[in-house]
Amino acid sequence: MADRIRLGMVGGGRGAFIGYVHRIAARLDDDYVLCAGALSSDPERASESAADIGLARSYASYAEMAEAEAELDDGIEAVAIVTPNHLHFPTAKAFLEQGIHVICDKPLTVTVREAEDLMRLAEEKNRILAVTYNYTGYPMVRHARDMIARGELGEIRVVQAEYVQDWLAEPIEQSGQKQAAWRTDPAQSGAGGCIGDIGTHAYHLASFVTGLEVEAICADLTAFVGGRRLDDNASLLLRFENGAKGMLWASQVAIGNENALSLRVYGDKGGLSWCQEHPNELMVAAIGEAPQRITRGSQAAGEAAERVTRIPAGHPEGYLEGFATIYREVAQAIRAHRDGAAPDSAVSFPTGEDGLKGVAFVEAAVHSSAGGTVWVEL
Amino acid sequence: MADRIRLGMVGGGRGAFIGYVHRIAARLDDDYVLCAGALSSDPERASESAADIGLARSYASYAEMAEAEAELDDGIEAVAIVTPNHLHFPTAKAFLEQGIHVICDKPLTVTVREAEDLMRLAEEKNRILAVTYNYTGYPMVRHARDMIARGELGEIRVVQAEYVQDWLAEPIEQSGQKQAAWRTDPAQSGAGGCIGDIGTHAYHLASFVTGLEVEAICADLTAFVGGRRLDDNASLLLRFENGAKGMLWASQVAIGNENALSLRVYGDKGGLSWCQEHPNELMVAAIGEAPQRITRGSQAAGEAAERVTRIPAGHPEGYLEGFATIYREVAQAIRAHRDGAAPDSAVSFPTGEDGLKGVAFVEAAVHSSAGGTVWVEL
Amino acid sequence: MADRIRLGMVGGGRGAFIGYVHRIAARLDDDYVLCAGALSSDPERASESAADIGLARSYASYAEMAEAEAELDDGIEAVAIVTPNHLHFPTAKAFLEQGIHVICDKPLTVTVREAEDLMRLAEEKNRILAVTYNYTGYPMVRHARDMIARGELGEIRVVQAEYVQDWLAEPIEQSGQKQAAWRTDPAQSGAGGCIGDIGTHAYHLASFVTGLEVEAICADLTAFVGGRRLDDNASLLLRFENGAKGMLWASQVAIGNENALSLRVYGDKGGLSWCQEHPNELMVAAIGEAPQRITRGSQAAGEAAERVTRIPAGHPEGYLEGFATIYREVAQAIRAHRDGAAPDSAVSFPTGEDGLKGVAFVEAAVHSSAGGTVWVEL
Amino acid sequence: MADRIRLGMVGGGRGAFIGYVHRIAARLDDDYVLCAGALSSDPERASESAADIGLARSYASYAEMAEAEAELDDGIEAVAIVTPNHLHFPTAKAFLEQGIHVICDKPLTVTVREAEDLMRLAEEKNRILAVTYNYTGYPMVRHARDMIARGELGEIRVVQAEYVQDWLAEPIEQSGQKQAAWRTDPAQSGAGGCIGDIGTHAYHLASFVTGLEVEAICADLTAFVGGRRLDDNASLLLRFENGAKGMLWASQVAIGNENALSLRVYGDKGGLSWCQEHPNELMVAAIGEAPQRITRGSQAAGEAAERVTRIPAGHPEGYLEGFATIYREVAQAIRAHRDGAAPDSAVSFPTGEDGLKGVAFVEAAVHSSAGGTVWVEL
Repeated sequence: MADRIRLGMVGGGRGAFIGYVHRIAARLDDDYVLCAGALSSDPERASESAADIGLARSYASYAEMAEAEAELDDGIEAVAIVTPNHLHFPTAKAFLEQGIHVICDKPLTVTVREAEDLMRLAEEKNRILAVTYNYTGYPMVRHARDMIARGELGEIRVVQAEYVQDWLAEPIEQSGQKQAAWRTDPAQSGAGGCIGDIGTHAYHLASFVTGLEVEAICADLTAFVGGRRLDDNASLLLRFENGAKGMLWASQVAIGNENALSLRVYGDKGGLSWCQEHPNELMVAAIGEAPQRITRGSQAAGEAAERVTRIPAGHPEGYLEGFATIYREVAQAIRAHRDGAAPDSAVSFPTGEDGLKGVAFVEAAVHSSAGGTVWVEL
Repeated sequence: MADRIRLGMVGGGRGAFIGYVHRIAARLDDDYVLCAGALSSDPERASESAADIGLARSYASYAEMAEAEAELDDGIEAVAIVTPNHLHFPTAKAFLEQGIHVICDKPLTVTVREAEDLMRLAEEKNRILAVTYNYTGYPMVRHARDMIARGELGEIRVVQAEYVQDWLAEPIEQSGQKQAAWRTDPAQSGAGGCIGDIGTHAYHLASFVTGLEVEAICADLTAFVGGRRLDDNASLLLRFENGAKGMLWASQVAIGNENALSLRVYGDKGGLSWCQEHPNELMVAAIGEAPQRITRGSQAAGEAAERVTRIPAGHPEGYLEGFATIYREVAQAIRAHRDGAAPDSAVSFPTGEDGLKGVAFVEAAVHSSAGGTVWVEL
Repeated sequence: MADRIRLGMVGGGRGAFIGYVHRIAARLDDDYVLCAGALSSDPERASESAADIGLARSYASYAEMAEAEAELDDGIEAVAIVTPNHLHFPTAKAFLEQGIHVICDKPLTVTVREAEDLMRLAEEKNRILAVTYNYTGYPMVRHARDMIARGELGEIRVVQAEYVQDWLAEPIEQSGQKQAAWRTDPAQSGAGGCIGDIGTHAYHLASFVTGLEVEAICADLTAFVGGRRLDDNASLLLRFENGAKGMLWASQVAIGNENALSLRVYGDKGGLSWCQEHPNELMVAAIGEAPQRITRGSQAAGEAAERVTRIPAGHPEGYLEGFATIYREVAQAIRAHRDGAAPDSAVSFPTGEDGLKGVAFVEAAVHSSAGGTVWVEL
Repeated sequence: MADRIRLGMVGGGRGAFIGYVHRIAARLDDDYVLCAGALSSDPERASESAADIGLARSYASYAEMAEAEAELDDGIEAVAIVTPNHLHFPTAKAFLEQGIHVICDKPLTVTVREAEDLMRLAEEKNRILAVTYNYTGYPMVRHARDMIARGELGEIRVVQAEYVQDWLAEPIEQSGQKQAAWRTDPAQSGAGGCIGDIGTHAYHLASFVTGLEVEAICADLTAFVGGRRLDDNASLLLRFENGAKGMLWASQVAIGNENALSLRVYGDKGGLSWCQEHPNELMVAAIGEAPQRITRGSQAAGEAAERVTRIPAGHPEGYLEGFATIYREVAQAIRAHRDGAAPDSAVSFPTGEDGLKGVAFVEAAVHSSAGGTVWVEL
């Protein structure tokens, strides 16, 4: 498009999974042009990584980049932050201070205080602070939320959320697997392991879809793999503001599961279930009626799904498309910001507030578990 | 068969679901002949119900029946008890005292003390006391247990059990649905609603398959439907003797679920999952390998499954066959008892001890929840 | 029940799969009592097999049995024929001539002429001639037929039937597997292999559910396994009387398939699909609407399913229950016959006419294929 | 990337589905930059469509564009052709004559002669002629092909291909639906309707995966919807060069199916099945063993899948990614061509020869059906 948004990236050098994903997500709908980056904290690696992808401007550090880009006439308008967790805060802070919009991977920060600081800063500077809880970009997740908002499930009673993987079933962090190493290191990940890495996605998804806040949790966090310093399995009971009850299970040692994020919600009029590994369908049951399989792109999928749907029913959209939808929604907000306007009311993406709640959730879970798996209010 | 076992039944009159099931289960493998019954506490209904099924001897009460049958040369050798829960205890007691084997529906009793009394009595009288946790009769459940016993999953880390229905999503007990009425009445069901009616099945299944005892639970029981006196949703955290962690969800208000009992178990070498609604298959994943779909009757299903399999792979066996397997196993034990022998070591059915554990589990769950969802040891 | 029907059996000795199935099917609903049998053409085996199951009267041959039973006051009222195919005709003939109802496994005979003779004889003698196309006993098959009869799918356009197995992927008949040996032997099976053994089930199911006759077929039969004398794979195009088009695939060499009988039907208003391996559900799609999963026992399953349903939704019924339904329906017809009445109009089971059509179908398929896979009218 | 390939597009203006898809596919891996287009045969629409997407150079016709681009120093190196079928030939011809690589949607042309001409021309000009049989871009399709090539299924016996939709179940072409209008118009689509639009995909997929040529077909094409001039349902028997037998069903009137392309292949050692709507998994069964579910990104998926896999297992890739893979593979070939080299031997995309075979298949199917559904050699 003619008015592509100028984007920068911090983190995401060679071999980094999530940086690669963010770049495709930014590119897919042609809303952004990637201009600048500090792709690695290792300057040489940063430079080589930038060359790999034909990046116009490469920096040795995020701090240098934030300052330099702010000086340029055609400097970046937004930055994607895809570093290990502990660097999210200083990086986001540096760019917000220069008036550059921030798109940050989750968790937003490693402490609640940091998250609050970023929220405050974004507000002061009137800049966008988005957090890529990417799973909310799936069309059928949008449809699920919309059905509940319209009351089709009635009053919500029960919420079951899961996010289950198996890639940490063995101590691969001890033999140099880089992704595993930082995720199991408290210094880089924060106090939560599995609960922070994936449990927050499940938590956010449950709130996003139901529109309900979790009031209290009771968490049992376990590190099953010998020598591991952070939890690799988390079992939680949840209580929601309206009296609904829930359970959340996150695990990275459940052999046979790849990326099994799922949500089931039950109200007094109906129930629904959705699984990330088959994201194009939503099972819905109204009381007393045969369950329906509602598919992305079909007539049965409503407007909320339709506006984030690219291709027809039966042509599966996947993880990258869902991720790209977050970028697309943020792009709409940035364009509105350029014009000094508010974005269209249908635009939806996770914000700093969502990021803060996620960090608070992780803190509370760690606190609950450390206390003997007792109830903790959020 | 020439030496069919003479069976009686208490409960199971017209319109009773579970009595009908027990009769088919007893008949399916031709191991029993049903001779006598006290099919209803209402004498007229008892008599008519007996006529419906061409029963040789009909009684007005279980007490009368126990005495009379014990006097007969060809009196019943075993009795099936399929009354509401609160009558299990006095009925079982009456027949055991007469030296008649007992096959009792679950829960064995409504208090732990009663269950203990029955266990003691059965031992004193040297009679069989079986409890129809029927889901353990499914061949693929047997195979799952066998795999774990042989160490194929390694050390067990995580156990996720669910038993979810939706038939009590509305207050149908208030409009005369008989099955609902007694199940939601503490006087007939005991202190547990959903947790006792179906949660115990999930609990038993988890222990049966893993071979592990649950040491402590933390339970959140809820009655969502207005006016209901017993829980219709139960969320539990579990801790197992070996350090494994688990979750158990039982619900009768999860709209869109019919009889969704499922179990997932994860060890350090592999994982498995099984769902009662598709009982002929077991999904198994060894670490680092593609998940396998092991089916009843196939070469991949081992001996433990094979000995309770009737027909070839792809010809689905269902609920009645699984239930009948419990009866068949008990029949083998009764025949051995006739001969003063021990049954074949492969024979397996839930006993009074299993029944006792189930009752203790329900009591603990009620206690935990009443105390604010705190940890309670079993 | 008080008025159980006295049943005999021909075939079904030790190790025979289908005889065992017929016995359970006859017993399951308590409508029959098995009194007499000629369980094997080998007299010793016949006698031992009879002893195994506690049979009252054992015969050395079907001919002797038919004569003897007809003489008895309490002789059998019906006989189940479960021999290899080539013996169906003489056996059924012998019993019908004695005025004994016949329940014959499929295919009814090995030639059309024989089938016509049996139909004529049954009519002359006013006796029931039933053929156990057992898959029509499944409740959701009944519901599918009922939906189509009521016009819910509109005018039928396309019918896709499959029956796929893999147990003959290797030449197991050459190493003494008895089931395989007679099924691949033209002398015992007739001219059709896979097409006769399982293709007929798919053909019958397609007609039963749609209510439409197949007018012409174009068949490609193949024996893939070296040395095999009968087809083990059959691919057919079908043309129906109303202009609908169809395909039928039967195979016993499709590795990974156990007993995958399935049917998909599409009209101008909707479509449906059903698979025997998951028989308790029927997927239905009305044009422009989300597909529904209709389950046995649910409110969405109509009366036609309900009358052959035993237990609630979510408690799977399987192959034996479906098979038993055929026996139960025949029992109702036999009881009506005792009273000189017609059975209830809802009673439905495959008859001699269905058996004849099945045999004609196999003959036509063999003829089509032998002629170079050309169109042959039925 | 620094050396992005300069791409043009013919067709794909406002509202065109497949043009939009090609643009995303070209962009996703950052291998191309779209510079020029003749996006519509209506000049005003062409111009507006070009403005929508910020296209540098917009032309009123493909002829003008081919000439003009060839003159430019930085003219396009390749063109994507996404017009209705009848324009594929003249457009491709115009660009090949100018030495511009062609990426053409399928079917390549509407007659065999045209396809042969294009193949000859591409060879003369030493330019790439690619046809977007996009479904071969899915990683698990690549893995299926690779398994068969390595002999894991043994000698192939049976091939079952389907491509089933429902969007033409009603005569929507008569009420102005543009996609339906040209697809059901012989002047724009050629002699095949459903068989050409989607049947060719299934045909190509079957050959691609098995590595086998179809030798003869027997086709029954039907137009079920009143007034429709081209087939909307096609049933075919297939014979392969090695003696394997197959069936192919294509339909656009099978209500309840969205885009159900599937393939099942059976050899004497194993079988596999794959469905486009769940493209990230491949079911594989070796004889006598439990079926496996092999997933994209897992260790069990081999190198052939790995090299076209972007993101980890459990993070679904979809239709756009599969399509993008075709573009990525062509990009590698174009880069090699720039250097006067052959592309890496692992590079794989459908070529003019595949396009020609597809057109020949459609012609043969139409011929077979018109002759009364007789066998026709390919």
